[in-house]
Amino acid sequence: MAGTNFSLYSENKNQELTPVIILVGPQLGENIGTTARAMLNCGFTELRIVNPREGWPNEKAVKASSGADIVIDNVKLFSDLESAVMDLKKVYATTARTRDMVKPVQTAELAAQEMFNLYANQERVGIVFGPEKAGLTNADISLCDMIIDIPLNPAFKSLNLAQAVLLVCYQFFQQQNAQDLTKSEITIRQSDRLAEKQEVFNFFERLEDKLDRNGFLRVTEKKEVMMNNIRNLFLKAELTHQEVKTLHGIIESIEKM
Amino acid sequence: MAGTNFSLYSENKNQELTPVIILVGPQLGENIGTTARAMLNCGFTELRIVNPREGWPNEKAVKASSGADIVIDNVKLFSDLESAVMDLKKVYATTARTRDMVKPVQTAELAAQEMFNLYANQERVGIVFGPEKAGLTNADISLCDMIIDIPLNPAFKSLNLAQAVLLVCYQFFQQQNAQDLTKSEITIRQSDRLAEKQEVFNFFERLEDKLDRNGFLRVTEKKEVMMNNIRNLFLKAELTHQEVKTLHGIIESIEKM
Repeated sequence: MAGTNFSLYSENKNQELTPVIILVGPQLGENIGTTARAMLNCGFTELRIVNPREGWPNEKAVKASSGADIVIDNVKLFSDLESAVMDLKKVYATTARTRDMVKPVQTAELAAQEMFNLYANQERVGIVFGPEKAGLTNADISLCDMIIDIPLNPAFKSLNLAQAVLLVCYQFFQQQNAQDLTKSEITIRQSDRLAEKQEVFNFFERLEDKLDRNGFLRVTEKKEVMMNNIRNLFLKAELTHQEVKTLHGIIESIEKM
Repeated sequence: MAGTNFSLYSENKNQELTPVIILVGPQLGENIGTTARAMLNCGFTELRIVNPREGWPNEKAVKASSGADIVIDNVKLFSDLESAVMDLKKVYATTARTRDMVKPVQTAELAAQEMFNLYANQERVGIVFGPEKAGLTNADISLCDMIIDIPLNPAFKSLNLAQAVLLVCYQFFQQQNAQDLTKSEITIRQSDRLAEKQEVFNFFERLEDKLDRNGFLRVTEKKEVMMNNIRNLFLKAELTHQEVKTLHGIIESIEKM
């Protein structure tokens, strides 16, 4: 299996700790294959796919992956982005377009530094890429903590999918190369650990349910935008496990009024 | 023409000073096209080709370039590498394989720093890529000053041509961007403006009042710590004016229950 004897991971047997790449609605199997190849070039092995248009498994993906079997064979399929990121701690959206959204934006280089620090602390992160042409929807972006911007020639920014994946993964790989893993021993207190997405999304659902029943989201055409904004607001806070519990407590308390 | 109003070059009208990409014996027109696209993504416009197997011009190259016309239209053809690099000051060979040669090797990142310094001094440089499968011959490498090594997963190092070009060009582009940081002005739309502290603190007071009355903060000795934690939670989000209003709306809605 390519990748398993990858020297950078020799001290860290659990290769699943590397960031997860998540493709939402990829249109062509070939692009999934070239993505897998680019991932493995940089030592990434975990690929999750939400609703691939051509279905899965896909022979064109296998061929285009040029032998990145360890990635292709372990692809996990999901029916929506939410379920694809449940077990992760921080999720980055990649988009070339400016969105009318309140969401922090980082360059790929700075994001890679941050991801590497989270990785060194065994916090799992994910990087989300949208469909080839349309890119991620605002609803999908609203589930993510941060937007990664890849600085490119502003007059010619359009990258193909695998090239975008390659640049983002390579930045992470450079961080690994630059740092001696044995030296980074940043410990985080258990109580400070970031919440899993499942905890955060549970809170969102509960909040949405309450707001729905109370008429806060009564204007149907505005509901999606409002919930996107609310998710963006709380995701910016990078909530810890304890903080999500506190938010539940606040809701319960106000309800009792 | 895409690229000509690329702002990074605004101070330097002579765009030909950017490094030249030289493909030796590329086999497929499609790979020339994707190379042109990757180049222009990073603001590179000058492509020279030595003996393209399918000849030139090439319709498949045009199609695969996704509109990088400025690169494709200005391709220069050569019959050997020697004549293709005659006017350059320093030439870098890219190769994934270890060669039995006495030739300095640099990582792509360090080479990009060096290239950028040469570029800033108006010294022209070139970066040479070999045929897709075979790579550069020792004879061709011997014409170059230095070998660029792209650090990658040692168990899966094989990049396709355009991806190798992209990584090398992107490293150069990052050098340019780093020099250009002082000029980057981040503008924030009015709706995105951060809330004034007064707005945020008003929200905190209102929330504290409600939680107090509902018994959430009833354990007096814990009250201060809890409110600190709640303030920390919301301050991490760097709330905008609009988001504070949304939070007030949420409290009102839940209260109505």
